Amino acid sequence: MGIPYKVVNRLTLYHFILDDLRESETFISSTKIASLLNIDDSQVRKDIKYLETFGNTGIEGKCRVGYNIKTLKHKIEECLGFKQTKDAFIIGAGNLGSALAKYNSFKDYGLNILAMFDTDKNKIGTTINGKEVFSLTKVGNLASRLGVDIAILTVPKDYARDAANYLAGAGMKYIWNFTPCILDVPKDVKVWNENLIGSFLQFTNNDKEEDIKNDN
Amino acid sequence: MGIPYKVVNRLTLYHFILDDLRESETFISSTKIASLLNIDDSQVRKDIKYLETFGNTGIEGKCRVGYNIKTLKHKIEECLGFKQTKDAFIIGAGNLGSALAKYNSFKDYGLNILAMFDTDKNKIGTTINGKEVFSLTKVGNLASRLGVDIAILTVPKDYARDAANYLAGAGMKYIWNFTPCILDVPKDVKVWNENLIGSFLQFTNNDKEEDIKNDN
Repeated sequence: MGIPYKVVNRLTLYHFILDDLRESETFISSTKIASLLNIDDSQVRKDIKYLETFGNTGIEGKCRVGYNIKTLKHKIEECLGFKQTKDAFIIGAGNLGSALAKYNSFKDYGLNILAMFDTDKNKIGTTINGKEVFSLTKVGNLASRLGVDIAILTVPKDYARDAANYLAGAGMKYIWNFTPCILDVPKDVKVWNENLIGSFLQFTNNDKEEDIKNDN
Repeated sequence: MGIPYKVVNRLTLYHFILDDLRESETFISSTKIASLLNIDDSQVRKDIKYLETFGNTGIEGKCRVGYNIKTLKHKIEECLGFKQTKDAFIIGAGNLGSALAKYNSFKDYGLNILAMFDTDKNKIGTTINGKEVFSLTKVGNLASRLGVDIAILTVPKDYARDAANYLAGAGMKYIWNFTPCILDVPKDVKVWNENLIGSFLQFTNNDKEEDIKNDN
C-alpha cells in the first residue's frame, strides 16, 4: 500500500524545486529537475510515471516542453497527502524541540505541531511559536482528547528511552526519534530514527558523488 | 572507496546501541541488535562482516555469546572515522542553527563545529555554546585560514540559494542542507539534502513496518 521510501523522498525534493519556481514559468523538463538533484533524468520520469497511478488525472510530459508545473505540483501534493494534515506533539522543549516548533515549513507539508511537552517546571506553561508547553504527564490525556498519535522526540539522550516508553504507554503509535539513542518500544509503535550523525558520516565519508543527492 | 550509505547508517545505529550498554556487559548478540532496530539479524552479521575488511583485527562472534562490545565499538569508530575530527561551519544562527550548535553529541562522532555565520548584525559577535557568530562575509577568509570546507546550511528558505552560491564561491566543498530548498551549486560542491519533511512523509505514509527502522 505504501509508496517506496526513496520515491517519497525524491517526490518531496521535486516539490521543493517546483515550489521555488517563478510564477511566470509554466513548464519544467525532467532534465532540469534531474540536473538540480544530480540524478538521472530517467529516474525523474519514472517517479512521475509512478504518480500517475494516483487519482484520475494523468501528467503528460510534452515533448521538448516538459511537464506542466501546476499539474505536477498538485499531483505530488495529492499523492503524498500534504492536504491531509497530521497532528503531532513535540516531546522536549529544549533547543532542537524549540527549533522544530518554529519551523513553519512543516505546516505546508501537512505536519501540524499541536503542543509541546517537557518535565522542566520552568518550561511548562510557556509558549513557543504559539505552541503551549505542557507537563509530560499530560501527554496521554491530551493525545486521546485530540486524537494525536505522532510524537517528535527531542529530549536529551539520557532521557530518551524512558520518555519513549512513557509515550508508548500513553498511546503514541509513531515516534520520530531525533535522539542518538535506540528506543526499545513495543512493536506496534513505529520508530523513525532521524539519524543526523549517520547523515553526516554518510555525506562526508563517501566519495561517490553521483549517489549523494540521489540516495539520501 | 566509500562505504555504502545504508551500511554507514546502520553502523552508526549499532554504535548508539553499544554506547548505551552498561559497563558490566561484555557481549552482545546480533539478534539483540537486530531486535532493537527491527531488522534481520543476518543483516547485522553481514554489516559486521563488512567491518572486518577495515584494519587488521577481526571481530569474531562467539557462538551463543555474541560479539565483544568493546571490540565491536572500537571497530565501528575506526571504520567510520569518529576519531578523525572534521571541522565545519554553521551558516545561519537562527533556531535550527543554534540548536545544532548546542548539540554536543556531534563531537563524539567526529563533527566539530568551529564557528557560525550570519548576516544579522544583532547576532554577529555573539557566542552560542562557545561558538562565535561571524559576519557571513568572513566565511571565505576563515575557511581558508582554518582549512574548513564543510558548511551546515540552516538559513531561512528564501536565502538558501544565494547563501549556497556564496559558500561555493568561498571554497566550501560540502554543504549539509537543512533548508527545504534545492541548491544550484557547481558540481564539485557536494550537497546532502537533510530532507526532514521527506522523512516525516516517508515515516507516516508508509505502512510496511518491517522497512521503517531498516531503511531510514
